[in-house]
Amino acid sequence: MTKQELFENIIRKKSFLCVGLDTDIAKIPEHLFNTSDDAIFEFNKAIIDATADLCVAYKPNLAFYESIGLEGWDVLERTVDYIRENYPDQFIIADAKRGDIGNTSAMYARTFFGNMDFDSVTVAPYMGEDSVTPFLTYKNKWVTLLALTSNKGALDFQFMRDDQGELLFEKVLKTSLKWGTDENMMYVVGATKAQMLTDIRAIIPNHFLLVPGVGAQGGSLEDVAKFGLNECCGLLVNSSRQIIYASSDSDFAKAARLEAEKVQAEMELILKQAALI
Amino acid sequence: MTKQELFENIIRKKSFLCVGLDTDIAKIPEHLFNTSDDAIFEFNKAIIDATADLCVAYKPNLAFYESIGLEGWDVLERTVDYIRENYPDQFIIADAKRGDIGNTSAMYARTFFGNMDFDSVTVAPYMGEDSVTPFLTYKNKWVTLLALTSNKGALDFQFMRDDQGELLFEKVLKTSLKWGTDENMMYVVGATKAQMLTDIRAIIPNHFLLVPGVGAQGGSLEDVAKFGLNECCGLLVNSSRQIIYASSDSDFAKAARLEAEKVQAEMELILKQAALI
Repeated sequence: MTKQELFENIIRKKSFLCVGLDTDIAKIPEHLFNTSDDAIFEFNKAIIDATADLCVAYKPNLAFYESIGLEGWDVLERTVDYIRENYPDQFIIADAKRGDIGNTSAMYARTFFGNMDFDSVTVAPYMGEDSVTPFLTYKNKWVTLLALTSNKGALDFQFMRDDQGELLFEKVLKTSLKWGTDENMMYVVGATKAQMLTDIRAIIPNHFLLVPGVGAQGGSLEDVAKFGLNECCGLLVNSSRQIIYASSDSDFAKAARLEAEKVQAEMELILKQAALI
Repeated sequence: MTKQELFENIIRKKSFLCVGLDTDIAKIPEHLFNTSDDAIFEFNKAIIDATADLCVAYKPNLAFYESIGLEGWDVLERTVDYIRENYPDQFIIADAKRGDIGNTSAMYARTFFGNMDFDSVTVAPYMGEDSVTPFLTYKNKWVTLLALTSNKGALDFQFMRDDQGELLFEKVLKTSLKWGTDENMMYVVGATKAQMLTDIRAIIPNHFLLVPGVGAQGGSLEDVAKFGLNECCGLLVNSSRQIIYASSDSDFAKAARLEAEKVQAEMELILKQAALI
């Protein structure tokens, strides 16, 4: 998907919501296991059908699928196919946090862009340029590079300051500008640090940001929008648990839709206030 | 496996070789595809049978298995089972370079330590403490944390210097000392920067180091040993391509053994010179 197409989808749907498909077998409604021998996929399918008109992106986190073994990978592949076939306007992000030496990162790129049809993969920056650039060789595919994450451990290294006063996550942003463009790179910036978005926007005014941490992790959508919006919206705000586990009963899909509607309505207001719609 | 057991295996086998099972379908001998419908596993099995008495560890890199899809994960699981059943003295490292927020890293830990029986997983440090510690909750299992990698991109961020003169990879070493011990953490330190091992040993004198980059990537085993050995050996030196792709003909396993024998002989000499055997 191109940046322009992503922006057009946001405008048309009045939403910059990304739904995180962190499908945990310990949390999905029990009744699904009684009515289907394909409960994990059925859960994903129901969540997707209930939310697809309210969001512009889906983000399965690989850890949840890998932890189920072969069945998990099979469900992941079928979930991506299901979204592609039924909702081709969705941007699909493999939240895999991969990254290895060049020839090995090329293998990961093949997995997510060749074998599966993801639009983007999250990549960890620690190993530098050759761990990231193999993902950028696929046309209209994206790297979503970790910059400032939403977890407590983000404080351990990401705020390390060099003798010029530059923080590690700022160095990641600046250095990676040489590797790709705002047409094939976006960045993970946690909502729990929304006030830092002003500094981040000074470095990358035009890039899309993938923002986790709104909702269950405590970040505020209003703050993220205030400091992070740009003229192409420039934001994909992810919500996982708050939406997909809104109910553990038979009404789980309806409850997920209600939660997604709340977020979409808030996003519509934000886009209007910013005169983007 | 405990640190003491690993050390005893090294002494008994006179080797600190780790064989990297970076099994690439484009590189394994073609004849295997004609004689077996399980060529990738058969390749691994033959390499393992040919080298198990010469090495103390195997390290499948996940990227190679994921890139083949479901079959790849199936081969990976069977490869780990095969090593466990036939060569229980081997230390098995999932070279996965994972790392995510706490509850998600716990899922990855379950994948590699619960579902599969790896001894260790390589973890990227960018996301800090809560991305690493969930892997440390399994008894006698290890985190192999990326510190100083062997690729060109290592120069991008790992050598960032803070206002106290400390480099990022040094900060990773020092900070992570609070998370685990030399009984459950080891570190990736690339052989291409062997002379830096002196500084690294000043920070972590007792930990094991997993050293990639000897052989195809240009690092010297002699230098690694000179600067990196400690009283428990403290080194696992990985070689992948040089051993497993020593020949692409029907003699591939024999050729792999010959290469592994050369490395083992050099290691035996090093261990003798250090009076460890």
